Amino acid sequence: MKLAVIGTGWIVGNFIDGLKFAPGFELFAVYSRSRERGEKFAEENGISEVYTSLDELAASPAECVYIASPNALHYAQSKRLLESGKHVICEKPITVTPAEFSELCELADRNKLVYIEAIMYMHSPVRAKLREALDDIGKVWTAHFDFSQYSSKYPAYLRGELPNIFNPAMATGSLMDLGVYCVYPAVDLFGEPETVSAVSSFLESGADAATAVSMLCKNTAVTMTSCKTGQDYAGSQIIGERGSIKIGSISKLTQAELIMNSGERRIICDDTPKDELMGNEARAFYELIAKPEKNSEKYRELRETALSVSRTMQRIRESAGIKF
Amino acid sequence: MKLAVIGTGWIVGNFIDGLKFAPGFELFAVYSRSRERGEKFAEENGISEVYTSLDELAASPAECVYIASPNALHYAQSKRLLESGKHVICEKPITVTPAEFSELCELADRNKLVYIEAIMYMHSPVRAKLREALDDIGKVWTAHFDFSQYSSKYPAYLRGELPNIFNPAMATGSLMDLGVYCVYPAVDLFGEPETVSAVSSFLESGADAATAVSMLCKNTAVTMTSCKTGQDYAGSQIIGERGSIKIGSISKLTQAELIMNSGERRIICDDTPKDELMGNEARAFYELIAKPEKNSEKYRELRETALSVSRTMQRIRESAGIKF
Repeated sequence: MKLAVIGTGWIVGNFIDGLKFAPGFELFAVYSRSRERGEKFAEENGISEVYTSLDELAASPAECVYIASPNALHYAQSKRLLESGKHVICEKPITVTPAEFSELCELADRNKLVYIEAIMYMHSPVRAKLREALDDIGKVWTAHFDFSQYSSKYPAYLRGELPNIFNPAMATGSLMDLGVYCVYPAVDLFGEPETVSAVSSFLESGADAATAVSMLCKNTAVTMTSCKTGQDYAGSQIIGERGSIKIGSISKLTQAELIMNSGERRIICDDTPKDELMGNEARAFYELIAKPEKNSEKYRELRETALSVSRTMQRIRESAGIKF
Repeated sequence: MKLAVIGTGWIVGNFIDGLKFAPGFELFAVYSRSRERGEKFAEENGISEVYTSLDELAASPAECVYIASPNALHYAQSKRLLESGKHVICEKPITVTPAEFSELCELADRNKLVYIEAIMYMHSPVRAKLREALDDIGKVWTAHFDFSQYSSKYPAYLRGELPNIFNPAMATGSLMDLGVYCVYPAVDLFGEPETVSAVSSFLESGADAATAVSMLCKNTAVTMTSCKTGQDYAGSQIIGERGSIKIGSISKLTQAELIMNSGERRIICDDTPKDELMGNEARAFYELIAKPEKNSEKYRELRETALSVSRTMQRIRESAGIKF
């Protein structure tokens, strides 16, 4: 199945590493606005075709596309490719607004195409183990999810440059880039929140350096923090009546440990190699395309959760005053 | 200086253990509604007088009183004792509302009495070390404070009893009992919040089992969680631009560690014995009474911070719908 990728960043490299877990794909094209970057990336990754216009890609024999462009481009690129009959897996956040996501879901359905978000959480086998551990700890009263990671681009910002990730015009910032990894488990494990409140600390560029959220999901009181200008060393935690779950990396679901109040401890997941994390996404994408009937329930779940997450993200932005 | 204590719980025992750090006090009386409990406690702690009515205590030669009764009684007891010319140190939360606190501050001032909250944070020397570490980590973009501690009374609640701590009529619950320990450092380190939002997960009794807060303090995005029906194993964290501070116990300020993004680590405070923590409070109370001029600035700071905390607590309750 002929696959193209949009973007030449490190995340695309990771996705390509993961393709070993989805051998049905034949990676044959890369799209980059810069021919030079595209050709360099193609050579490094054994890719035969380089496209520098979306028209070329849309007209190409690609059957499916992985999109890892800046957030602000996700909607238009996904739309164009779905209109051209390509299956699409798009990096998180899949669109800026839930309305855009719903619109593209309808478009994909009309054209009998698969359209999903590339989010490690939903495709990780650790998600099922996490749900098992939830049964062990009983009623969850509170949880805190954090993804704070000092951006390698922040020194450039401090020098006066404006990297995409700190440019609100690109629909980025800590919530869009990192916070979404917290919203996914919160919504998936506890349900779409009844109430959502959020505050952000903003950079002068207008991007949120950090966002803090409190929300109530079916009588579970949840907080979330994300930050691109500082580093987390404490992780996330789900606090239940009989025990708690600590999660070192909420994006990768690694260093996850169950701690019962009785003293018993159990490792839920120590580590998962990055290529496997991305490989899970690629394999799921392939399976949805190749065996649609068999995977219809999974597809429905992915869609519904993605829509819940997108709605919640929008409510967080509205509450915190994050504008693009 | 003749000291009386109100209450016979474990916290009073801890306070008495701490009196070795404030040798100017002469512990001579205990007040308990139950003569039996009072006499048992007096005997165990070498206390000569047992009072079972507030009138007796008010008329007694006690010059100062430590109050550790249920929260709902703090205001009336403090008022009565301040009216009777006693200095008062009252367990947190010092009153239910900031209006009550302000009223009693005025009363204390009129009667030239010391009236402060017994809160370990404000009297710990680790507070100054924490402020030093804040200088090291630079601009703080986000922070999460948690105090979640499985209550030894919860099994009784589950059996159908109604311990004070889960009885809203006693002005208790997770926020009042534990959350206040998170509000103190948040307000002290980052300032009284501009915006406050909160949600609670409630027990059937109406008490908040857990409360989650998000708030903005001078461009720092802060979350807080407190829970009495589950246990924290991850601690609190302050995330700055150059490093982060992890704090194992936010109430005691122990297991506090500075982690610079460069990799450098420094223990801020490993452990502090409980008697020393309580002793700091007792000594501060004594110094404020014995040397008012010398400690006027400290007294002003304690008052202002306590009032900021009380106002913030009220805003959290209003937002979360916690009612007594």
